[in-house]
Amino acid sequence: MNPFQFQVRVYYEDVDLGGVVYYANYLRYFERARSEWLRSLGVNQEQLAAVEGIGFVVVRAEIDYKLGARLDDQLAISVVPVEMKRAYFWLEQEARHADGRICAAARIKAACVRHSDMRPQPIPEQLIARLAA
Amino acid sequence: MNPFQFQVRVYYEDVDLGGVVYYANYLRYFERARSEWLRSLGVNQEQLAAVEGIGFVVVRAEIDYKLGARLDDQLAISVVPVEMKRAYFWLEQEARHADGRICAAARIKAACVRHSDMRPQPIPEQLIARLAA
Amino acid sequence: MNPFQFQVRVYYEDVDLGGVVYYANYLRYFERARSEWLRSLGVNQEQLAAVEGIGFVVVRAEIDYKLGARLDDQLAISVVPVEMKRAYFWLEQEARHADGRICAAARIKAACVRHSDMRPQPIPEQLIARLAA
Amino acid sequence: MNPFQFQVRVYYEDVDLGGVVYYANYLRYFERARSEWLRSLGVNQEQLAAVEGIGFVVVRAEIDYKLGARLDDQLAISVVPVEMKRAYFWLEQEARHADGRICAAARIKAACVRHSDMRPQPIPEQLIARLAA
Repeated sequence: MNPFQFQVRVYYEDVDLGGVVYYANYLRYFERARSEWLRSLGVNQEQLAAVEGIGFVVVRAEIDYKLGARLDDQLAISVVPVEMKRAYFWLEQEARHADGRICAAARIKAACVRHSDMRPQPIPEQLIARLAA
Repeated sequence: MNPFQFQVRVYYEDVDLGGVVYYANYLRYFERARSEWLRSLGVNQEQLAAVEGIGFVVVRAEIDYKLGARLDDQLAISVVPVEMKRAYFWLEQEARHADGRICAAARIKAACVRHSDMRPQPIPEQLIARLAA
Repeated sequence: MNPFQFQVRVYYEDVDLGGVVYYANYLRYFERARSEWLRSLGVNQEQLAAVEGIGFVVVRAEIDYKLGARLDDQLAISVVPVEMKRAYFWLEQEARHADGRICAAARIKAACVRHSDMRPQPIPEQLIARLAA
Repeated sequence: MNPFQFQVRVYYEDVDLGGVVYYANYLRYFERARSEWLRSLGVNQEQLAAVEGIGFVVVRAEIDYKLGARLDDQLAISVVPVEMKRAYFWLEQEARHADGRICAAARIKAACVRHSDMRPQPIPEQLIARLAA
């Protein structure tokens, strides 16, 4: 089965004076892909916040930088859930060149929290099923 | 009388592949300086929002880009109120090299708005006095 | 005739604590659209830099902020050349909601410069024709 | 012995619609602190690039997000070298509130590379001594 993928283009705002994507910006790419992944699963984060008062926050990120990406490059950003727990989950994400070479690979731990006090919350049952699909 | 000034340092995150500060980032520098200017005047934006339900938003920005700023450069960002109206004001801001040369100059129009509906509001009297000081 | 348009999505990275796109980020959106516009015209900026030693830099930007854009909003960013001179040109750009309402409108002056010393240069003839098309 | 510390202020550009610093921006803060740390050690990155043709790049980052930081917060960003190898080193960095509570903690692996081809290079002897000081 193919993982979820989202295409991003590298623009001027993204690269540093070395001509490659600035290291923090991969976290922006990874978040865009996670937002599109949730959207593709029918998970509406704004509604989740408004109705249930909960949301997901990244509590740990591990990123390996392997290869620079340059201006105008088109990168495929993947999202693969690899571990689903009661109140958090782990994702694997990669940013790949069109030829398949990996620019950056990440493991992301996202926790479900109550917005009012940011305390951990169990992920709603129907969401767990959807995220792990 | 000397204008309000705030120092910013140019870091990797700020420059593009041309080696100079990316054009949008001057708006970040200008906002930092405006925040410090308001702080120096004793204007607490969070309290203003919480107590009065109002705040300032930029409604127009005119920026002239004159000279690149490079990694490690230290820039002086000025804030000069030039016109104070009932519900908005104009500021002039410059980003200057240590030797006085101007990198970017801006005219910024900021309006007072009610946060609930973003409609224009009169600037509170005691604030007008303080901003124009 | 329809102007060039490029779609951008509003992500977490783009909004501030007011829930709307941070004012500097429209300049990032406008630049993305200009890059895609040049690409659509067959203008390769990297080749232009490498072969001719020239490039375009923004020397003035005037932006009116009219209406907030929120998380998940899809914005259409337009690019319309309005004045073409020997060494610079003016563009008009808008960021519009799907229903046509304008979030931000800009007038952008871009100059052709020699990369080696950033001095103004005439825009190559065949480029003028292409940009004004 | 006290670790190197660098103060950063949280501005509008840094926070997301949750009112806390956007997760990618800690990597910007960490980089600012590393740049100031190198400067404090007398290491000139631009000269290193120009004269020796080498530089440092982050090849792995592990970040734990513990506590949100809000608009106007002043954070102390630390830099502690914890392992020095022939061609790379590990740093530990923390972003702390004024009261000592940790917002984010990171382990950063930086490698020495030759700029021409981005291949790993031994860190110059006199630099190793300085970095490990």
